[in-house]
Amino acid sequence: MSDRSVRKRESILEAATELFLTLEYAGTSMADIAAAAAVSKQTVYKHFSDKETLFREVALGSVGEVGAAFQAEVAATAEASDVPLALRELARSYLIAVMNPVLLRRRQLVLREAGRFPDLARKYHESGPRRTIQVLATAFDRLSERRELLVDDPLLAATQFAFLVVGEPLDTAMFRGGRRRTRRELNSLADAAVEVFLAAYRRKRESPRLHGLANPNS
Amino acid sequence: MSDRSVRKRESILEAATELFLTLEYAGTSMADIAAAAAVSKQTVYKHFSDKETLFREVALGSVGEVGAAFQAEVAATAEASDVPLALRELARSYLIAVMNPVLLRRRQLVLREAGRFPDLARKYHESGPRRTIQVLATAFDRLSERRELLVDDPLLAATQFAFLVVGEPLDTAMFRGGRRRTRRELNSLADAAVEVFLAAYRRKRESPRLHGLANPNS
Repeated sequence: MSDRSVRKRESILEAATELFLTLEYAGTSMADIAAAAAVSKQTVYKHFSDKETLFREVALGSVGEVGAAFQAEVAATAEASDVPLALRELARSYLIAVMNPVLLRRRQLVLREAGRFPDLARKYHESGPRRTIQVLATAFDRLSERRELLVDDPLLAATQFAFLVVGEPLDTAMFRGGRRRTRRELNSLADAAVEVFLAAYRRKRESPRLHGLANPNS
Repeated sequence: MSDRSVRKRESILEAATELFLTLEYAGTSMADIAAAAAVSKQTVYKHFSDKETLFREVALGSVGEVGAAFQAEVAATAEASDVPLALRELARSYLIAVMNPVLLRRRQLVLREAGRFPDLARKYHESGPRRTIQVLATAFDRLSERRELLVDDPLLAATQFAFLVVGEPLDTAMFRGGRRRTRRELNSLADAAVEVFLAAYRRKRESPRLHGLANPNS
């Protein structure tokens, strides 16, 4: 695809997201989308054969990308030397990624149309949130093997980590839209979540020096 | 209202919930609802002046009730002698209440129509999830005063407790519908959540005598 064609495709996807959210799937036409994206109806059809295909692309488009970037960071955390520090950094970037306005809008859209497209909602959930938790579980398993954490059930621990970090802001955004929180608010939420997680799963050390490292406030 | 009238009102609300979820708000008519509830259209209009009024009643109807029952249990927990045990019981009944299929359906409905009725989504969020967290925060504050927990920020701790306990099952149900989990699965999730919470917030006791007093079973 030429750059121009890529740009057009992006504007169509953006315009479609907003229209699907405001007019709902049923109330949005391909002509509306063409007008909002400032392209011809033919251009829309050149990129997407019909409204359903376009909707599916909007809903699932970015799910994989986020996973890949995050996955690398999680893998690094599993091998980090200062595990509490690495977990705090991971939690911060996880929360910031999840609160990205474009991703929030897509999540809203998938939830809102879950009645019409249950398979899409399921697929989104599998390849987004569930995938992230599986990746975290692998890291916690490795950290347990390295005797940094004491985790019996890595999938459970990963689920708890995820919901401690992103649960509330994400849930609130689904009900009330993405009220913009400052980077500082998000960081403080992420740090507090990691503190709880480490209190439960950090392997207790005998040496006071190592213990001090486990608690950022001591 | 007569018993018969109350029963009719209930069938209308149930039928409306299912139809709004399957046909969406825009696709559901008062005639559809009357047919599904096996009452006349006049009966529907006698109880609810228009479709929007009916939708609002469906979406907000039970939010208050749940709060009241739960609130009493939280207040008892704040004064319990065996706090870990009381918190486990609280977490279990909280999770079971939240996973009630009727409530799950209502929550789905509110999220799905949040674009059309943003004020309703906001009100639901205030009087449901947020209210619960505030009630929990009051209890954690009291438990901190009683030196059972060590909680600096009761609202933060309450939010963490809530998302540790109900976060994942509730989120999964929004994407995939309420896959029925056994009572045993739910209890085990709730217990695991409380374990993490207590690791972070249970006040560490110095003296074995005091520790014994705090736990009548030890």
